[in-house]
Amino acid sequence: MDKPQEECGILGLWSEGPVDVAGLLHLGLLALQHRGQEAAGMAVTDGKAFLVEKDLGLVNQVFTEERLGKLRLPEARLGIAHTRYSTTGSNLRINAQPLTARTAHGVLAIAHNGNFTNAKLLRDRLLLEGATFQSTSDTEVMLLLLARMGHLPLPEAAAQAMRLLQGGYSILLMNRKTLLALRDPHGVRPLVLGKAPWGYAFASEPPALLLMGAEYVRDVRPGEVVWVEEGRLQSLQALPPEPAPCAFEWIYFARPDSVLDGTEAYEARVRMGMELFREAPAEADLVVPVPDSGIGAAVGYAKASGLPLEFGLYKNPYAGRTFIQPTQELRDLKTRLKLSPRGR
Amino acid sequence: MDKPQEECGILGLWSEGPVDVAGLLHLGLLALQHRGQEAAGMAVTDGKAFLVEKDLGLVNQVFTEERLGKLRLPEARLGIAHTRYSTTGSNLRINAQPLTARTAHGVLAIAHNGNFTNAKLLRDRLLLEGATFQSTSDTEVMLLLLARMGHLPLPEAAAQAMRLLQGGYSILLMNRKTLLALRDPHGVRPLVLGKAPWGYAFASEPPALLLMGAEYVRDVRPGEVVWVEEGRLQSLQALPPEPAPCAFEWIYFARPDSVLDGTEAYEARVRMGMELFREAPAEADLVVPVPDSGIGAAVGYAKASGLPLEFGLYKNPYAGRTFIQPTQELRDLKTRLKLSPRGR
Amino acid sequence: MDKPQEECGILGLWSEGPVDVAGLLHLGLLALQHRGQEAAGMAVTDGKAFLVEKDLGLVNQVFTEERLGKLRLPEARLGIAHTRYSTTGSNLRINAQPLTARTAHGVLAIAHNGNFTNAKLLRDRLLLEGATFQSTSDTEVMLLLLARMGHLPLPEAAAQAMRLLQGGYSILLMNRKTLLALRDPHGVRPLVLGKAPWGYAFASEPPALLLMGAEYVRDVRPGEVVWVEEGRLQSLQALPPEPAPCAFEWIYFARPDSVLDGTEAYEARVRMGMELFREAPAEADLVVPVPDSGIGAAVGYAKASGLPLEFGLYKNPYAGRTFIQPTQELRDLKTRLKLSPRGR
Amino acid sequence: MDKPQEECGILGLWSEGPVDVAGLLHLGLLALQHRGQEAAGMAVTDGKAFLVEKDLGLVNQVFTEERLGKLRLPEARLGIAHTRYSTTGSNLRINAQPLTARTAHGVLAIAHNGNFTNAKLLRDRLLLEGATFQSTSDTEVMLLLLARMGHLPLPEAAAQAMRLLQGGYSILLMNRKTLLALRDPHGVRPLVLGKAPWGYAFASEPPALLLMGAEYVRDVRPGEVVWVEEGRLQSLQALPPEPAPCAFEWIYFARPDSVLDGTEAYEARVRMGMELFREAPAEADLVVPVPDSGIGAAVGYAKASGLPLEFGLYKNPYAGRTFIQPTQELRDLKTRLKLSPRGR
Repeated sequence: MDKPQEECGILGLWSEGPVDVAGLLHLGLLALQHRGQEAAGMAVTDGKAFLVEKDLGLVNQVFTEERLGKLRLPEARLGIAHTRYSTTGSNLRINAQPLTARTAHGVLAIAHNGNFTNAKLLRDRLLLEGATFQSTSDTEVMLLLLARMGHLPLPEAAAQAMRLLQGGYSILLMNRKTLLALRDPHGVRPLVLGKAPWGYAFASEPPALLLMGAEYVRDVRPGEVVWVEEGRLQSLQALPPEPAPCAFEWIYFARPDSVLDGTEAYEARVRMGMELFREAPAEADLVVPVPDSGIGAAVGYAKASGLPLEFGLYKNPYAGRTFIQPTQELRDLKTRLKLSPRGR
Repeated sequence: MDKPQEECGILGLWSEGPVDVAGLLHLGLLALQHRGQEAAGMAVTDGKAFLVEKDLGLVNQVFTEERLGKLRLPEARLGIAHTRYSTTGSNLRINAQPLTARTAHGVLAIAHNGNFTNAKLLRDRLLLEGATFQSTSDTEVMLLLLARMGHLPLPEAAAQAMRLLQGGYSILLMNRKTLLALRDPHGVRPLVLGKAPWGYAFASEPPALLLMGAEYVRDVRPGEVVWVEEGRLQSLQALPPEPAPCAFEWIYFARPDSVLDGTEAYEARVRMGMELFREAPAEADLVVPVPDSGIGAAVGYAKASGLPLEFGLYKNPYAGRTFIQPTQELRDLKTRLKLSPRGR
Repeated sequence: MDKPQEECGILGLWSEGPVDVAGLLHLGLLALQHRGQEAAGMAVTDGKAFLVEKDLGLVNQVFTEERLGKLRLPEARLGIAHTRYSTTGSNLRINAQPLTARTAHGVLAIAHNGNFTNAKLLRDRLLLEGATFQSTSDTEVMLLLLARMGHLPLPEAAAQAMRLLQGGYSILLMNRKTLLALRDPHGVRPLVLGKAPWGYAFASEPPALLLMGAEYVRDVRPGEVVWVEEGRLQSLQALPPEPAPCAFEWIYFARPDSVLDGTEAYEARVRMGMELFREAPAEADLVVPVPDSGIGAAVGYAKASGLPLEFGLYKNPYAGRTFIQPTQELRDLKTRLKLSPRGR
Repeated sequence: MDKPQEECGILGLWSEGPVDVAGLLHLGLLALQHRGQEAAGMAVTDGKAFLVEKDLGLVNQVFTEERLGKLRLPEARLGIAHTRYSTTGSNLRINAQPLTARTAHGVLAIAHNGNFTNAKLLRDRLLLEGATFQSTSDTEVMLLLLARMGHLPLPEAAAQAMRLLQGGYSILLMNRKTLLALRDPHGVRPLVLGKAPWGYAFASEPPALLLMGAEYVRDVRPGEVVWVEEGRLQSLQALPPEPAPCAFEWIYFARPDSVLDGTEAYEARVRMGMELFREAPAEADLVVPVPDSGIGAAVGYAKASGLPLEFGLYKNPYAGRTFIQPTQELRDLKTRLKLSPRGR
């Protein structure tokens, strides 16, 4: 099975009238790039054509102007997008999302952040019943479950699938007419709803809403299905909420300026730094942050301790995607590449 | 739905021991290139890994040495390949074959020459039952039918599927262990069986067998399922044979040196040329063939009429894949590109 | 030094008014594809911009519609093009032509079929005088010689360079205003002049003229410089003609329908086949041509001998660009790929 | 003429014995990526082969493992590399460096940071003398001047060329045996020398030396030529030093941890922030840095003023290479992409 997708980014939009769906999703993806650098993709529809483009690479490597052009349907009103986190060994083009399938609900596309803990069991059962899978991704299990429930309206089918699936997940789904947002009953992964002049948007983090020109309205509730169809925003509670969000969203995954479930990540980090000083006061001359996610904690520690904050480590913003020959000589050098101390 | 695939080429092999499956399939594909220039693909397995590579382009454009290298499993023993004919409007990467799906029979790959006339009906029924499709190709219907029959051995399931499907088709199928060859009850499209020192091979036309180092054994019979598993070649007659092969195979599609159902295409063309003279004798000084497929008929016409055979038309072997700006000036010139008369 | 370029194809055109120079050169290149399958290139100017595109590959691989689009200057009136023959070991992108340089004559582009036997000597002398070379191609020596003669009009400089260079060559040269055609004093390689409604064209073989909409006027004379500038066709005899053309042009290199220095290649082949029978009559039942270049000779041999002509060898039109793993098994198979006998 | 190259990065190395030249240059380039994101290139030699790879893109886009592999000569001992700054309109592959030419000094490669103010004049004079240029880059003028001085040893020729050229520049030059470093008499652009266990290295900034495993020795002096040949480091003062370095190196161009001509960029920024408070004290509650280059100044301003330092702006590290459709709607959104304020 494919590795868990702890830290992917997802977003989607539904518009009353024609809008540059691909262009807006592209902007939103750029605001979620920190949640996944391995692959990016999007699905766009105008109610008739249903186009998907996805590939390995950063958002701007995948979505060249030429490739965005292919997705620019003049009457486009609906789309979802995904940026995928790199987990060792799963760096395959086939795992890029959105995944799609033609089903009794029409063409479905899905973008998924999180994982299903009982995917293998469900998958084996579906195979025995005659299902065909295209990938080893646990995301595809959701698509197959929905296809089995062609007799139900799509939001009902999604709620039913949520009752079968276990794990922590935020999901966006679409067919040619409807956009759906799903969040597991523990609210492990974030998902927020926004309102724009042209319609509605969903995203893993609020800054992606802003870039698409939408204002934050609220977080999708744990266990909730929210959907937009023919201009109406509707909601049903598929499962009772039992909030248990993942702390790493505030510590590390989310952007510092993201407000998730009511708390800004930067502010949370400052408070954690202050708390760290109270729990572990150090005899020191300076507080030096490890950039970038450690800056908030260092500011908090400096504030609580009264020690001066100084910058002493340079983080190379281009070091992320290096690859190095497996010789000892070069491996030793590599440690100096990403983070280097001042002072030579 | 995708356009009919009248003239694709398919081939496959099963080997007792490790052999360069990708290399052999590549050679065989080159011998079938005339049956399809739009796309090429192959699937290879060693019983564990199951690799597929396919893309738009000629065989040697798709299968660069680098791409063949990706398919070269050291213990490979089984594979199928496909070359796709270009029909207007369907020039899409998603339609390249082999198609694959993970099913209760394990991973299945299929390569298909022909079409199913009742594909739409079966497809709609499968959707209602909860199936998911990846493409609009009628070939995928066969995969879905097989997935539904996971309780049957694969050859039995294939025979059962043949009883549900209508149309003219030759098909090669594989999972990690078994290679299957299917031919519709009318024998509309060709399919031959060969024996090599290392095992068995199937191909649309005999010259592909020879290039893989296999000797022609016999044509697969109309309505027959032939399969190789654990070294044993087996056969079952899924449907009673009602031979009605497509005459265009001998007139135009097949290589002149291919012997199909007992008759060589070149010889058939010569006889058709002789017959043409008897039906329509012309007052003429010369017989000038239109190359390449008209050469046999011209030789026959010259033989029957006693007129001298002369070459008067030059066929540009590189003209096949041209594309021209839609201006009148260039369009007029284009007619001179493919076939030009001697004599200036 | 780069290998001799015995069999490249060159062409060029000069137009009174704006014309689709890139589109016409593309058509002409397709008619010269048999003279070189390794690389293709063209240079186009409108008197201001001077654009060059070239790469490894067949004409239609290099000149995709997108790439032709880059060369489509609305006011283009002048261009040259080249298709390069594959010689072992020299398959480098840097050797694709036209070559260009910015000189005292403005930007110069050159397309060359043939070779200079004293290139190394001239190259060494130029280096001592402070010249800079970009490639190891002997063609570049001609460019450097022209750059040294900035005080002379370009046709005079070309004639002067011809007096320094030895070997067999046909050359097309252009700057932003003038198109020049040069042929060595022995006329080793072919070069013909044509007239079109829009202006003048040159090409290695007449069929390329026809495809560009030009009519054959005459062969460029051995030792002659012909040029077009401001609509006037002019000529000077740089060196006295001593005709000694290469017989392989009629035997093998040229298209059968090309008339070179007054003799059609197909007709020459038929006469050589007749002569072969007179020199070496065989006791035989049939004459079987080896396609494609052997067809004319076989027709001649059959005519002179009275033996029937039969086709017994299939030439795979797609076999040209194969590459095979260096194993004995596959090498043995390769011999069957290109040319296969009928009869299995 | 090509745009000035104010902010490129250059580096080079000479090794006593075989070393992974391409791998080391790749590491060094990553440390100079901030000086240019448009193109990257390198030249490597083992004394016989002389290989160049360059292209548009970030260092890790150009230097994939496959492309580095092409440069990995087992006996490589010498190489230079370049990363190019993006200036509007000059985003052409032909302008990627190193530039090369075959000259009386053998093959020469050059990597250049800066510009020559009298390039046009020198270029016109060289054309009259019979020179051929490949590009419109002023860097090529240096190559041509060196080619003219084949009678002088390369360091002498370089010193002579420096006396003819005007402007601010740092340059690395190599042929098959010698590595040279040149800095203009004003020292406008930085260039430092390092010593490694395997030999010598040069780079625009010290952190690139460290990544290659070299220790900083000293800055190349304004007006100096330093070269390494057969293991000996030598120097000559081509022109008297008149130091006038560019202040933007410390304000903006250089990495904060770079020490140039004795002063660390971060420390300079802190002192400028302190000075800013003295010149322009503000009535404020907070000091909020504009990341990244403004952090040092904000730390200095906070220190001098006693105001608390707070982080209030999020800089999207992936926003750098965006491209946006020219619609008003999307342009308005773009302003929010790169830098977004906290608070909401």
